[in-house]
Amino acid sequence: MFRQRMNADEAKELFLKAFVPLSDTEKLPIADCDCRIIAENITAAINVPNYSRAAMDGFAVRACDTLGAGSNSPVVLKLAKAVESRNFGLRRVGVCEAYPLFDKPFLKVFENGTCVRVHTGSPIPDGADAVVMLEDAVLREDKVEIFMQLHPGKNVGETGEDIKKGEVILKEGHRLRPCDIAVLAALGIRDIPVFRKPLVAVIPTGEELVSRENKTLREGEVYETNGLMATLYIRKWSGASRLLDIVEDDPEKIKDAISSNLDADMIITSGGTSVGKRDFVPGVVGSMGTLLVHGVGISPGKPTALGIIKGKPVVCMPGYPVAGIVALFFFAREALRKLGHIPDEQDRKVHAVLSGKIPGRTGYKTFARVKLEKGKAIPLATSGAGIMSSVSKADGFVIIPENVEGYDKGEEVEVVLIE
Amino acid sequence: MFRQRMNADEAKELFLKAFVPLSDTEKLPIADCDCRIIAENITAAINVPNYSRAAMDGFAVRACDTLGAGSNSPVVLKLAKAVESRNFGLRRVGVCEAYPLFDKPFLKVFENGTCVRVHTGSPIPDGADAVVMLEDAVLREDKVEIFMQLHPGKNVGETGEDIKKGEVILKEGHRLRPCDIAVLAALGIRDIPVFRKPLVAVIPTGEELVSRENKTLREGEVYETNGLMATLYIRKWSGASRLLDIVEDDPEKIKDAISSNLDADMIITSGGTSVGKRDFVPGVVGSMGTLLVHGVGISPGKPTALGIIKGKPVVCMPGYPVAGIVALFFFAREALRKLGHIPDEQDRKVHAVLSGKIPGRTGYKTFARVKLEKGKAIPLATSGAGIMSSVSKADGFVIIPENVEGYDKGEEVEVVLIE
Repeated sequence: MFRQRMNADEAKELFLKAFVPLSDTEKLPIADCDCRIIAENITAAINVPNYSRAAMDGFAVRACDTLGAGSNSPVVLKLAKAVESRNFGLRRVGVCEAYPLFDKPFLKVFENGTCVRVHTGSPIPDGADAVVMLEDAVLREDKVEIFMQLHPGKNVGETGEDIKKGEVILKEGHRLRPCDIAVLAALGIRDIPVFRKPLVAVIPTGEELVSRENKTLREGEVYETNGLMATLYIRKWSGASRLLDIVEDDPEKIKDAISSNLDADMIITSGGTSVGKRDFVPGVVGSMGTLLVHGVGISPGKPTALGIIKGKPVVCMPGYPVAGIVALFFFAREALRKLGHIPDEQDRKVHAVLSGKIPGRTGYKTFARVKLEKGKAIPLATSGAGIMSSVSKADGFVIIPENVEGYDKGEEVEVVLIE
Repeated sequence: MFRQRMNADEAKELFLKAFVPLSDTEKLPIADCDCRIIAENITAAINVPNYSRAAMDGFAVRACDTLGAGSNSPVVLKLAKAVESRNFGLRRVGVCEAYPLFDKPFLKVFENGTCVRVHTGSPIPDGADAVVMLEDAVLREDKVEIFMQLHPGKNVGETGEDIKKGEVILKEGHRLRPCDIAVLAALGIRDIPVFRKPLVAVIPTGEELVSRENKTLREGEVYETNGLMATLYIRKWSGASRLLDIVEDDPEKIKDAISSNLDADMIITSGGTSVGKRDFVPGVVGSMGTLLVHGVGISPGKPTALGIIKGKPVVCMPGYPVAGIVALFFFAREALRKLGHIPDEQDRKVHAVLSGKIPGRTGYKTFARVKLEKGKAIPLATSGAGIMSSVSKADGFVIIPENVEGYDKGEEVEVVLIE
């Protein structure tokens, strides 16, 4: 018999409290960091942009030179003819055709009453403090008529307007997205410290299991699937995983497999978690460490066991595949998040109207599989925990709380998508 | 000037109609196929399970032998003592301790009036057709008292109850999840044909851009970020990508870069898409193929250009990073989906209440960046298309349709998460 059937949320809380997140970090090139978790605050070492830039195509001016300009009364400024900087043997930068960026003497001689042609993004010459838009100016040979009075800063993006030097731009624990990596790149950062991916050893058990390398099945044999599925979900959820060979239903062999994988950060076993004569896994976990939970109020998934061995979390998935996937989603994923500092991401959910009744099971958090079709959630008829194809046919779970009898046809429900 | 500003949805439709999906497929081990798209229907070549199995722990019987059994009137069956099959030098399979699976003679002698001990999942011996649960039976030495009358099939999972031989189990165009791969594994399938990942060549352009290999920036220089970001999003969205070196604002060099990457399935350029003197990219696309769109009613993102060169879709992202990301999400992602047969996945969305007003822009589909905090969507103050950090600070976009003036503080809005 199960020691005691524990409420699903209590079991999760008890389990997650029993181990600590990994502290190891690694330094990686930013291009390899999508979905990784930053291990320290990132402070901007430079301003972005590192110069003040034109926000419009037009002419850089001193705002004070435009005093009194209006649509009927232009002020006239001299167009500074700058030497094309290509000829200086310096890389031409900025979007300013006529403004030789590194020609410092030029910068110093930006005089009252002059202006310079700039493009969006061009550096603003020292001394200039505003940009007249092309629409508000008329170029006449070496003179420019300005038809609008500007205040200082008009159409100018200041140095650091995007990111200020010294600003904490990304915080420890943030999960990096490509747009965050673009910000790191803008700061010239090439490598960053991220938390190491938790390594999960996945141990399938069961004498009926055979590897796909065996060409044909004999009667009574089934191909191993749960271990492979767990391995792929762990990778999808930003962990690293190691899938081991199938272990027989033999306590010593199970023990050996676990103890030789305690270099990993988490252990997932599959199978042998029930209360039959061949269900050795929870007992082995208890003998090697602490069996925290055996028997959980989730349906399917009741025979799930949870434990800790040498500080490492151990999730024992039931062998029945649907029960197994529920244990993976409900426990293993959360444990992985805690180990790897992975922020609690909202599951992808949709709302849909039930096309048929789905019953809950009193005292159990029930994971009912549904298919989505045109805004309808269609309950999948075969609900046995052993019917793996019911998960593959499903688009998601409707989760029925412990104290709810079920949901009726026509009710709007939330569907957690299975990805 | 832009040829014509096109409505966002019309531009997308015009663009997506102008090219066809890739037809190439590749055969991969199933363990490498998470998120890949199956290129043909998969039919089950075997039954899963390939034997009828006990659905409960108990005793396999002939249902007819239990006729008349009740809680006060047990029928008594002889427990068949089977030889432990381990000793046969055959692999012991199934969960049946006392039932030697390959001891065919035994199967033939399953007689009326006998029963056999089985565990959940054990094969049912030939001749037996029901399983009496342990609770309904009492074992007395070599006899078993059965306290319940059973109908044939009771507590027996039939051969093929999970998957029937000949059933189409996954259809062409399905995006594989780990639970689907588990189903393929259950069928003993090792490799499957999937559509090739579209290869996207990403070409950053702009003379102000420098690679992160350059240790420090000179005034007027900025690090290349858009190309890196596009590369990483393409990978996240299940494409393959190739990031090229920065190309100067020179029509010939842009042309060379594009033509030497037409082995790819799609081209993304970044920068040089506006209407300034240095904005050569749309013109080059037009000269090499067809420029379908230049100037789109998305904000930011108006200077986006879309074209086709030798049948390959070309997305020209504006250089301003926020405009660039909008073009990526709105056009490049959809083009990738079409090329790669990737099903239209629902974006991850949440609902939140606006903590401040966000204005739309008439005639434009506006992508307003918001931060999420405790159910509130906080508009990000800096909304300039050049402020890359506003995307990194954002959790998502609120998309304001063309004909909506904006949303007010307190309104509930849908936030498309930026991932």
